[in-house]
Amino acid sequence: MPDTNPKKENVEKILLDHGSGGKVSHSMFSDMILPIFDNAELAKRDDGAVLDIKEGRLAFSTDSYVVDPIFFPGGNIGDLAVNGTVNDVAMCGAIPLYISVGLIIEEGFPKKDLEAILKTMANAAKKAGVKIVTGDTKVVPKGKADKIFINTSGIGVIQRGVNISGDKAQPGDKIIISGTIADHGITILSTREGLKFDSNIQSDSAPLNKMVESIIGSGLDIHVLRDPTRGGLGTTLNEIASQSNIGINIHENSLPIQAPVQGICELLGFDPLYIANEGKLMAFVTEKDSKKVLDIIKQNEFGKNAVIIGEVTDRNPGKVFLETTIGGFRIIDMLTGEQLPRIC
Amino acid sequence: MPDTNPKKENVEKILLDHGSGGKVSHSMFSDMILPIFDNAELAKRDDGAVLDIKEGRLAFSTDSYVVDPIFFPGGNIGDLAVNGTVNDVAMCGAIPLYISVGLIIEEGFPKKDLEAILKTMANAAKKAGVKIVTGDTKVVPKGKADKIFINTSGIGVIQRGVNISGDKAQPGDKIIISGTIADHGITILSTREGLKFDSNIQSDSAPLNKMVESIIGSGLDIHVLRDPTRGGLGTTLNEIASQSNIGINIHENSLPIQAPVQGICELLGFDPLYIANEGKLMAFVTEKDSKKVLDIIKQNEFGKNAVIIGEVTDRNPGKVFLETTIGGFRIIDMLTGEQLPRIC
Repeated sequence: MPDTNPKKENVEKILLDHGSGGKVSHSMFSDMILPIFDNAELAKRDDGAVLDIKEGRLAFSTDSYVVDPIFFPGGNIGDLAVNGTVNDVAMCGAIPLYISVGLIIEEGFPKKDLEAILKTMANAAKKAGVKIVTGDTKVVPKGKADKIFINTSGIGVIQRGVNISGDKAQPGDKIIISGTIADHGITILSTREGLKFDSNIQSDSAPLNKMVESIIGSGLDIHVLRDPTRGGLGTTLNEIASQSNIGINIHENSLPIQAPVQGICELLGFDPLYIANEGKLMAFVTEKDSKKVLDIIKQNEFGKNAVIIGEVTDRNPGKVFLETTIGGFRIIDMLTGEQLPRIC
Repeated sequence: MPDTNPKKENVEKILLDHGSGGKVSHSMFSDMILPIFDNAELAKRDDGAVLDIKEGRLAFSTDSYVVDPIFFPGGNIGDLAVNGTVNDVAMCGAIPLYISVGLIIEEGFPKKDLEAILKTMANAAKKAGVKIVTGDTKVVPKGKADKIFINTSGIGVIQRGVNISGDKAQPGDKIIISGTIADHGITILSTREGLKFDSNIQSDSAPLNKMVESIIGSGLDIHVLRDPTRGGLGTTLNEIASQSNIGINIHENSLPIQAPVQGICELLGFDPLYIANEGKLMAFVTEKDSKKVLDIIKQNEFGKNAVIIGEVTDRNPGKVFLETTIGGFRIIDMLTGEQLPRIC
């Protein structure tokens, strides 16, 4: 017999009242959010979290996640939001410690989906070794947002002597990518459009902070770390070329791309160089140290398929070139036009 | 002659491409966002900001803003978002230093409105003495969000010896409110509904960090600071009563309410105790020091109308009572039900 009790239905959906700041908001925090994120800082229920920090440099980063669909092979908007900010903090050469979570929820959103997302966030935070210490929930009337948007901001500490930035690439540097490209974007696209390819591709969403810790801990000469998310590898390489005012050459036959991802790109006319990744990093490293850094990355669970894909040059500063498989050169510009909105 | 050039119209609206992470995103950052927020940390264009911090305790807070309408008398969503997070950090007893900004923009949003909002944010940050050091912009297709949502997260430092939290209220404490209540909520409601009252009420959105700095700098015995935003004074008092496990009595005839705000509340059946404020704080202070703290607050530009509105008792822990003008007592619960969605 179908359950037609309207009251029960209401209880299982997020209502405007869950974002009122009043009694129902507080209940949701106490009964759902706090038990899932469970830590002493959050349990204080103050307007912000109070955190002990050693003197030094902090990294601070923020990202909002509006991915559609919110559930996809390999994860959901929750771990994407935690991993994304963990990675952005790590790419500053920092050890991420604390995360904030800002939820914007559409009225009527299923409570069980929210719970699933929050649990995924808690697991992702645990896996990355960060704490979710402060947060905020807003609910907007039905039709005023699409299901759920999540902002995460993160704080990390940078060890003394570490000095990594997008403006530090130098001619001669080798460029390492930590694994296959375009997995996340092609997974989102296939799921959203209901495309049934006979493949098991899934999002590569993953925390890269332990990988960064090993790389930096090695004491080797690292110049730049960056995760090629929105805009893909092609856009991110352009960012570095511009920030460091150097030229970049990459080799088409070195680019690691899974065959099914390559196949879908060819079928639909997408260039994998511009498709988002959510668990990959690029490292710019002196040639001398590049093999050692590559080995360190390959030892990490998310770095098994790492390869060197190119090098920094002093020619054509600000430009990125792809040496094609047949030996020609193609200029790689930043992504122009939005081929895949709401990819993260 | 009307300008019907469709290309120009496109240039003046936010497109999906502005959120792609590609070329147009970068242009918007370089040509609009960076010049407005102008600081060295943001200009580095890395995945996060790198900040120098002295050893000690940090306050970290986040809030998303979904207010409707986005422009209203006394401010817009931009200064609301900066002041709100500045205040949340300050209420931890901290000096706010750094702010992140996460924008979620609906495709087609007018560029001039975005620019106006960003400029208001930059001014609000300047006024509060904080820097906007990192950010993110997402654009969602038309109809998938309502105009613009803004997340701000903030970091502040807490001076040695400062120990302020919602769980530190003690019987005998006096409760100070820094000015008139319900101004923000009633302004938003009136603007949203197009109500034409013959009054000049406006949002009280304001940065309270300098006020907090003076209060704390006095060395007087402060137990709790809290800004009564969503849920209003009534809900916030309940939060403190519950966190500190004490009783609270407030006096109806002490509550500072502007006559036009009171009038609109009576006309529409709203209780000003549950209407949001965006530039007011409550201080819980030992009776001995309460007059001095009141004087300090009154010297601040946003504290001229500060008054003592009640006291903490050891009776009825967790409960808040209002002594009415005719001498009766009414229990004040947390807000139940959402009377005004999208108030902040």
